[in-house]
Amino acid sequence: MNTLHVSSIVLTFSAPTSPEIISTTPFHFSLKLKTDRILRRKMDYVYAPGKNHLFVPGPVNIPEPVLRAMNRNNEDYRSPAIPALTKTLLEDVKKIFKSTTGTPFMIPTTGTGAWESALTNTLSPGDRIVSFLIGQFSLLWIDQQQRLNFNVDVVESEWGQGANLDVLESKLAEDGGHTIKAICIVHNETATGVTNDLSKVRFLLDKYKHPALLLVDGVSSICALDFRMDEWGVDVALTGSQKALSLPTGIGIICASPKALEASKTSTSVKVFFDWKDYLKFYKLGTYWPYTPSIQLLYGLRAALDLLFEEGIDNVIARHSRLGKATRLAVEAWGLKNCTQKEEWYSDTVTAVLVPSYIDSSEIVRRAWKRYNLSLGLGLNKVAGKVFRIGHLGNLNELQLLGCLAGVEMILKDVGYPIKLGSGVAAASAYLQNNIPLIPSRI
Amino acid sequence: MNTLHVSSIVLTFSAPTSPEIISTTPFHFSLKLKTDRILRRKMDYVYAPGKNHLFVPGPVNIPEPVLRAMNRNNEDYRSPAIPALTKTLLEDVKKIFKSTTGTPFMIPTTGTGAWESALTNTLSPGDRIVSFLIGQFSLLWIDQQQRLNFNVDVVESEWGQGANLDVLESKLAEDGGHTIKAICIVHNETATGVTNDLSKVRFLLDKYKHPALLLVDGVSSICALDFRMDEWGVDVALTGSQKALSLPTGIGIICASPKALEASKTSTSVKVFFDWKDYLKFYKLGTYWPYTPSIQLLYGLRAALDLLFEEGIDNVIARHSRLGKATRLAVEAWGLKNCTQKEEWYSDTVTAVLVPSYIDSSEIVRRAWKRYNLSLGLGLNKVAGKVFRIGHLGNLNELQLLGCLAGVEMILKDVGYPIKLGSGVAAASAYLQNNIPLIPSRI
Amino acid sequence: MNTLHVSSIVLTFSAPTSPEIISTTPFHFSLKLKTDRILRRKMDYVYAPGKNHLFVPGPVNIPEPVLRAMNRNNEDYRSPAIPALTKTLLEDVKKIFKSTTGTPFMIPTTGTGAWESALTNTLSPGDRIVSFLIGQFSLLWIDQQQRLNFNVDVVESEWGQGANLDVLESKLAEDGGHTIKAICIVHNETATGVTNDLSKVRFLLDKYKHPALLLVDGVSSICALDFRMDEWGVDVALTGSQKALSLPTGIGIICASPKALEASKTSTSVKVFFDWKDYLKFYKLGTYWPYTPSIQLLYGLRAALDLLFEEGIDNVIARHSRLGKATRLAVEAWGLKNCTQKEEWYSDTVTAVLVPSYIDSSEIVRRAWKRYNLSLGLGLNKVAGKVFRIGHLGNLNELQLLGCLAGVEMILKDVGYPIKLGSGVAAASAYLQNNIPLIPSRI
Amino acid sequence: MNTLHVSSIVLTFSAPTSPEIISTTPFHFSLKLKTDRILRRKMDYVYAPGKNHLFVPGPVNIPEPVLRAMNRNNEDYRSPAIPALTKTLLEDVKKIFKSTTGTPFMIPTTGTGAWESALTNTLSPGDRIVSFLIGQFSLLWIDQQQRLNFNVDVVESEWGQGANLDVLESKLAEDGGHTIKAICIVHNETATGVTNDLSKVRFLLDKYKHPALLLVDGVSSICALDFRMDEWGVDVALTGSQKALSLPTGIGIICASPKALEASKTSTSVKVFFDWKDYLKFYKLGTYWPYTPSIQLLYGLRAALDLLFEEGIDNVIARHSRLGKATRLAVEAWGLKNCTQKEEWYSDTVTAVLVPSYIDSSEIVRRAWKRYNLSLGLGLNKVAGKVFRIGHLGNLNELQLLGCLAGVEMILKDVGYPIKLGSGVAAASAYLQNNIPLIPSRI
Repeated sequence: MNTLHVSSIVLTFSAPTSPEIISTTPFHFSLKLKTDRILRRKMDYVYAPGKNHLFVPGPVNIPEPVLRAMNRNNEDYRSPAIPALTKTLLEDVKKIFKSTTGTPFMIPTTGTGAWESALTNTLSPGDRIVSFLIGQFSLLWIDQQQRLNFNVDVVESEWGQGANLDVLESKLAEDGGHTIKAICIVHNETATGVTNDLSKVRFLLDKYKHPALLLVDGVSSICALDFRMDEWGVDVALTGSQKALSLPTGIGIICASPKALEASKTSTSVKVFFDWKDYLKFYKLGTYWPYTPSIQLLYGLRAALDLLFEEGIDNVIARHSRLGKATRLAVEAWGLKNCTQKEEWYSDTVTAVLVPSYIDSSEIVRRAWKRYNLSLGLGLNKVAGKVFRIGHLGNLNELQLLGCLAGVEMILKDVGYPIKLGSGVAAASAYLQNNIPLIPSRI
Repeated sequence: MNTLHVSSIVLTFSAPTSPEIISTTPFHFSLKLKTDRILRRKMDYVYAPGKNHLFVPGPVNIPEPVLRAMNRNNEDYRSPAIPALTKTLLEDVKKIFKSTTGTPFMIPTTGTGAWESALTNTLSPGDRIVSFLIGQFSLLWIDQQQRLNFNVDVVESEWGQGANLDVLESKLAEDGGHTIKAICIVHNETATGVTNDLSKVRFLLDKYKHPALLLVDGVSSICALDFRMDEWGVDVALTGSQKALSLPTGIGIICASPKALEASKTSTSVKVFFDWKDYLKFYKLGTYWPYTPSIQLLYGLRAALDLLFEEGIDNVIARHSRLGKATRLAVEAWGLKNCTQKEEWYSDTVTAVLVPSYIDSSEIVRRAWKRYNLSLGLGLNKVAGKVFRIGHLGNLNELQLLGCLAGVEMILKDVGYPIKLGSGVAAASAYLQNNIPLIPSRI
Repeated sequence: MNTLHVSSIVLTFSAPTSPEIISTTPFHFSLKLKTDRILRRKMDYVYAPGKNHLFVPGPVNIPEPVLRAMNRNNEDYRSPAIPALTKTLLEDVKKIFKSTTGTPFMIPTTGTGAWESALTNTLSPGDRIVSFLIGQFSLLWIDQQQRLNFNVDVVESEWGQGANLDVLESKLAEDGGHTIKAICIVHNETATGVTNDLSKVRFLLDKYKHPALLLVDGVSSICALDFRMDEWGVDVALTGSQKALSLPTGIGIICASPKALEASKTSTSVKVFFDWKDYLKFYKLGTYWPYTPSIQLLYGLRAALDLLFEEGIDNVIARHSRLGKATRLAVEAWGLKNCTQKEEWYSDTVTAVLVPSYIDSSEIVRRAWKRYNLSLGLGLNKVAGKVFRIGHLGNLNELQLLGCLAGVEMILKDVGYPIKLGSGVAAASAYLQNNIPLIPSRI
Repeated sequence: MNTLHVSSIVLTFSAPTSPEIISTTPFHFSLKLKTDRILRRKMDYVYAPGKNHLFVPGPVNIPEPVLRAMNRNNEDYRSPAIPALTKTLLEDVKKIFKSTTGTPFMIPTTGTGAWESALTNTLSPGDRIVSFLIGQFSLLWIDQQQRLNFNVDVVESEWGQGANLDVLESKLAEDGGHTIKAICIVHNETATGVTNDLSKVRFLLDKYKHPALLLVDGVSSICALDFRMDEWGVDVALTGSQKALSLPTGIGIICASPKALEASKTSTSVKVFFDWKDYLKFYKLGTYWPYTPSIQLLYGLRAALDLLFEEGIDNVIARHSRLGKATRLAVEAWGLKNCTQKEEWYSDTVTAVLVPSYIDSSEIVRRAWKRYNLSLGLGLNKVAGKVFRIGHLGNLNELQLLGCLAGVEMILKDVGYPIKLGSGVAAASAYLQNNIPLIPSRI
C-alpha cells in the first residue's frame, strides 16, 4: 500500500555496555523507531544537509569516478568481456601489495572472509601459530583462528602497544623443531591505531632461519601505508575493498606468495568457497571465476586502481602520512593523548584519541553524528568509552581532514572538554601548509 | 603515463572442450587481446549500440530504481541508520521465502557461499545426506558437499529430468534408523531448466515421518517461481542477490527454519565466516552485522524488495509463468526440443533449448553476442554444445522477451537451422496477447 | 512531515480533443490523481516491471556510458577544466554536421530555442523567408517565424508529403531581386516521418544563383540521417541533445556557416540570450561560456560523441537506415499504410503509421503504455487519431526494435485490427538477418 | 583509433587582463594543453584525490539524493507521468518564493534566459526602467536590458555597496506620470556579496503609490536568503537551478505575480521561446510543456524540493545565515576586509574578501585549485585581482565550510599574507559551536 502513518520517531542511544576483554563483539550505536515502516519508502531518513563527513576507518569515501564506473547494469560474466577485464585486475592488483611474485585472489567476501581464506588455505587443523593480540581486530582474528581449530600462541600486549616482538623472538629461538607453522599479525590494528613493524618480523624469521609462514592482515594498511610484500617476505597479505581502495564492501583481496601456494597444496583445512584451488583452476582456463563475481565491483576496482596509479602508490602513501601526522599534531594541540603509546607504532590511517575519564567517548561519536553530520569511530571493547577514532584513510584530502578536526574541536567543547577552538586546526595546517604538494594534473 | 599504444585487438573464441561429466567447471567463452593495456582506461571496450539484451539466467537486469538506490557513497555501518535499515530488510526478506517462522541471514557472499553456510551450520562432518544430481549446479553443490566431508548419497538423473523422488522414497523407507540427516535439492536446476516438486519431497518426508532436514537451493527460483518455505517445511532455503531479486552479485540470502536453527546448535562443522551464531548474537544486540556489509547492496535490496512488493510477489510469479510459457511456445514453433523432458519439470525462469546435432550451441551463444548484442546462456558440461539457454527471470517484461526470441530466430537462421522467421514470436505473442494484465499503476 | 495519506489513485485518460489545423499545440495523454501528494515521495509511481520500451521520436534512450558520465557533482565552470573540455566538444561536434568550416554553438536550451537562435541571429524583422509546412513541427517553426516578425511565404503540402520544391523553384525563379532572405526547411518532419531532400534545395539555390540563406532544422535527423552541411551549403543547421545524440534535453546545438556568421553581423533582430556574439566573444577569450553551462551535459556530450565516433558516424547512419527499413517492412506486412506518401520521403528515424478509420490511433498509444510498457508517439494535430508513430532513432539496436514491433502487433490485435501476429516481425527480421553487421569490438 | 600519444601537458594560467568597467565579460582562469586529444577519453583529467571543495557561488554541490533521482533514462514527456510530476512541481516551487498567488514557469534555460523572460514578457521596447548597477551581475543584466531596447535609468553604486535607494526615491517622487514601468533589482549581487533590502523598495513604491513592476533577480538568494515574494510585492522573481536549489544548470525558474501576468498581456516585446503565453496555454491543457523538458531535471527538482521541505525553508535560511556569519567572522579574524561595505548589505550566500594590494586575488583562486582541490570565486571585472569570493550557498554544512576556511588560511600564507593559521577557523567555530542545531532526523 502507499499509506504510511508515522506519528513519531524516537531515537534512543544505548549506553555502551561494559565490555569484557574476551568479547569479540564490535559495538554500534543504535536507534529505535516507533515504527520501522517509514524506512520502507524513505531511503535517506536520517538526512542532513551537506556532505556526510565520513571519518570512520572504513568503509571510506568512494571517489566519484568509481561511483560512476559502478553505475551499471549486470552483464554475462561468461562473455569475453569479464575475463579480459579480470585479467587486467589480477595483474594490477598485485601492485598494491608491491608484489611481482604473488598470486592474487579477489574473493566475493569481506575482510573476515579474507582472513579465513588466508588461514584455511595454508594451514591444517592443529597447526601451531603465533598471533598477536593488540586490539579488537587482532582479537577477532585470533578468535577465528581458534574456532578454525588452530593451536594459537596468543601474544598479548596492552591495547595501544604494538605486537610484542621480543616474545616472538623467544618463541622462534626456542622452536628449533619448527613447530610454529605461521606467524599471524595485523599490520595496522584499526581499533587502537597501532602499526606493527613487519620488516622486523621478517628480520626475526630470517635470523632464526625459521620457515613459518608470515600471514598479514593489511585491511587498514594496504594502499595507504608502506607495504612491501615481496621485500618483507610476506606469505599471505590481505585487504578489503571498502578500506584504502575506497570501494564498497564486497571483495576480499588476498595475495599469496609462492611459498603460500606451495603450502596450500598440503593444507587439510576444510573449505570450498574459500578454496584457492578453484580459482587457480579457472585462472588456467582463462575464465577466472569459479562463481559469479560482482560485475559492478570489478569495474569499480578497475577505476579505483586507475585512480591510485594515476596518483602513484607512493604518493598515496605520502598523502596518508601527511593526514596521519596532521591529525596527531591536532590531538597534541588539544592536550589529548594518542591511544598509541609510542611514536614507532603511530598509524597513518587511523588515530585513536584517549579522552579524559570524565568524558564518555561514545558521547563524542553520537554527538558528531547528531549535530555535525560527522562519522567518527567508536572505541571498541577494552577501550570503549575511552577512545574515539578518527579514520583518515582512502580517498581523502587535507581540507576534508581539517573540516573533521574543526568538527572534533566543537564536539570536545560540547562535551565539556576545555579546548581552545582552532588549536588543533592551527597545528595541523601549519604542518600541512608546508607539505602539501601541488596537484600534478593541475600544475 | 597517459600513453596507450594499441596496435590491434584480436578476439578469438575458444572452442568448447569436450567436457567430462565429473568436471565441476562451468564454461565461458573467451577472447584474447594482443595487449590488455587498452582495458585499463576503456571501461566499455566491447561497446555495441543500444541495450545489451541480457538473457542469461543470472546475473539479470537490474531495474533503474535499484541502480539509483545503490548510487551512493559509503556510510558508517555502526551508526543508527544501518541497523534500522537492516531491521526492515530482515523482516521483509522473509516474504520472498513465504516464511513467517524462518530466520534470515544476508551474508556478503555468492550462491556458492550460501550453499556452504546452509550445510556447515546444520550438519556435521560424516553426516549422511541425500542429494540429487540433475545438472551442472546440482553437480557443483554435490561436489561441495563431498569436499565438506559429508557422506552423500548421490541420486543421479539424466540431465533434463527432475530429481528422482522414487529413489528418495526408497531411501526414506529403508531408513528407519534416521541415518539420513538431510535432503539437499536444487529447486530449479539452472543448467537444464528443470524445476523439482518440493511439495512432493515434503510429502515423502512426512509419509515416512522422517526427521531429515530439507535443504533447498532456490537460487534460480525464489522471487520468480512459487516457493513456500513454511508450507513445504523447507528447513534451509537460499538464493543470491543477482538472480530473481535483480541486484548485483554480493548477498547470499538464507532462511532457516526453527528446526534448522536448532540443528545449528549441535553442528560440529568448522566455520567462522559462515557461522550463523555470529549473526544471531548481533541480531540480539540490535546491531545486526558481525562484519561490514555492503551499504550499497543494503539500500539496493530495500529498493528491490519495494519493487517486488509493489508488483506483488504472486504477480511476479505469474509474470515469470507467462515468460516461461511464451518461451516454450516459441521453442515448439521453431521445431526444437526443450532439454527438460517432461512438462511437470518445465522451468519458468530458464529454458534450455536442444539444438540439432549438426549445430554447435556454443556458436549460437557467440553469435548472439557478436552480432545481436544478446547474451544467452551456454550449455554446461554434459550438455555443452547441445543446448543454449534463455534465461527469463528477474526484472524483465514481455516485449524484452519477444525481442530476444526474434533475435534467437535470426541466429538460428545464421547457423543454418531451417527456421521460419517470426514463427516463435507469433506463437509467444498469441499467448501473451491473451494473458498480459494491464499495469496496475497505469490503469 | 512524514505522513502520507493516500486513499486512492485514479488515472483517467482524456480523449484527444479534435484538433484544429491552425493549432500549434502538441498533444499529450494525461492522467488525474485524486491526490498528487503521493508523487512528492514516490519518484516512479507508474512503475512497471522491466525496461520501458521508449519508441517516441525523442527524447530517446540514453546509453549507459553517457548516464555514467553525467552522474557527477557540479564543478566550477571557470576553472581550466571546463574550457579545455568545451574546446574538444566544439571541435568534435562539427563532425556530426559534416562541417569543417562551420562554427558551432551549444546553447542551454531546447530545439525551440535553437530555432529562435538560428532565425534571430541571421535575419532582421520583416525579412522575407520561404518556409515549408508539412507537419506539426514545421508548423510550430513557422508559427515562431511569424511571431518573430519575419515575412513568411508558407509553402504547404499535404501532411505525409515532403516540401514542395516546385513551388520553391518558382519563387526563386521569380526572385531576381533577391527579396527572399532565407529558406527554412525541416530536414525530417517528426510528425509525419517525412525526410526532405536538402541537396535538391541547394541545387535550386545554385541553379538560380540565389543568395538566400539555407536554414535547416535537423532535430530528428542529425546523427541519424545522412547530413552534409558543407556539401549541401547549409547555412545554419541545428539539433537538440535529446534526439539522435541520445542525451537528456538541454543543449540546442547549432552550426553556422561562414555566410551565416557574416549575416549575423547585420541582423537587427533583438536577442541577448540567443546572441551568437556573446559566444564568439568568449570563444576568443578561450573561456567559451557567456553564462553557466550544465556541467553534466558537457561530460555527457563528450561521452555521447565518443560513442558515436567509436561506432562511426556512417555506421550510425547505416544502423538507422536498417531500423527504418525494417519498420517499414513490418508496417507493410501488417497491411497498414505509411503516412509518408512516397518512398523518396521515407524517414529512417520515425515512421508514422496510418490506422484504419475505425481505430483511434491514440488508443494504440495509451494501450502501449498501459499494458506493454511501450512508449509510442501520438498522432499530432491534423493526423491526431489517424496515425501513431514509431520512433527509431538514437542509441537503439535491432532487437530492441523487434521487441517494439512485436508489441505493436499485440496492440493492434487488442484494438481490433485483424493482424497476423508475427507477420511484421518476420518481415523485419528477414531483412535484418541479411543486413546486421558483426559488432566491430566483438569480432 | 585507440592510440593516444600524449608527450606532455602544459597548463598556463593567463594573468587577468585589466578589466574595463563597461566590460560585460566574466573571467575564467584558463589552461592550455599541448594536445587536447587526451581529453577525448579522459573524463577527469584534472583528477585530485578526495572531494573537490566547491565554494564558488554557483554551480553548487548537488546532494546525493538529487544525483540519484537524476540518474535515469529519458521518458516520453507526453505520457501521463510527466504532467502529473510537473503539476506537483509547479505547486511546490512557489513555496521557495513564498508566494501563493504567483504563477511559476520552469524554463529550460539559465539565469540569463530567466532574466530575458522576465523582461520581455512584462515590458515593451522603449519602456523606462530603473536598474541598479552594483556589481558584475547587475551590470550584465543592465547590458541585457539595454540590448533588449528598454530605456534604462542606471543607478550606479560603488562596488561593495547596495542599491542606492535614495536615488530610487527621488526618481519615484519625480515620476508622477508613471513613466517608470519597472524597477529591476538584483536581490543578492553575487560579485560583491551585497544583499539589497527588497522590503524597502516595496516601501518606497507604496509610499509613492507607484505602479511600476518590481522585477527581482533572486539567482543567488532564493532558497538561501529570506525571500518573500507576496509580502514584498515582487512582480517577477527568478532563480536558476544550479544555485541554492543545488541542481545542475538547466532550469530558469520564474514566478510572476498576477500583476505581472496582466502586464504580459500587453507587452509587445518580441519573444517566442521565452513567451509565458505558450506555457499558460499548456497549463490549461494540463500537459504543461510547450516543448521538451529535461526529464532528469524534473525528477531532480522533485528531489531537491523534497530535501528543502524536509529541512524546512526557514531552517535552510537559518543555515545560510550561520554559514555567512561564520565566514565573516573568519575574514575579520584574518584581518581582512569584506568587499561589502556595510553590515546591512552582508550576504549570507557569498562573501567577497578584499586582499591587500600587494596580493593578486586571482593567484589565491588558482592556488586553491592547484594545491588544495578547493574552488573559490574569482574577483570579476572592477574587483578582479582585488577580491576572491567564498560561496556558501546550497547544500552545504558547517564542517564543509570550516574545511574551506582552513584551506583559505593556508593559501593566504602561501601568497605571503601574514595570517595566524587557525584564527579564522577558531572565530567561525566559536560562533558555530553555539548555534548549530541538532539534526532533526537524528535527535
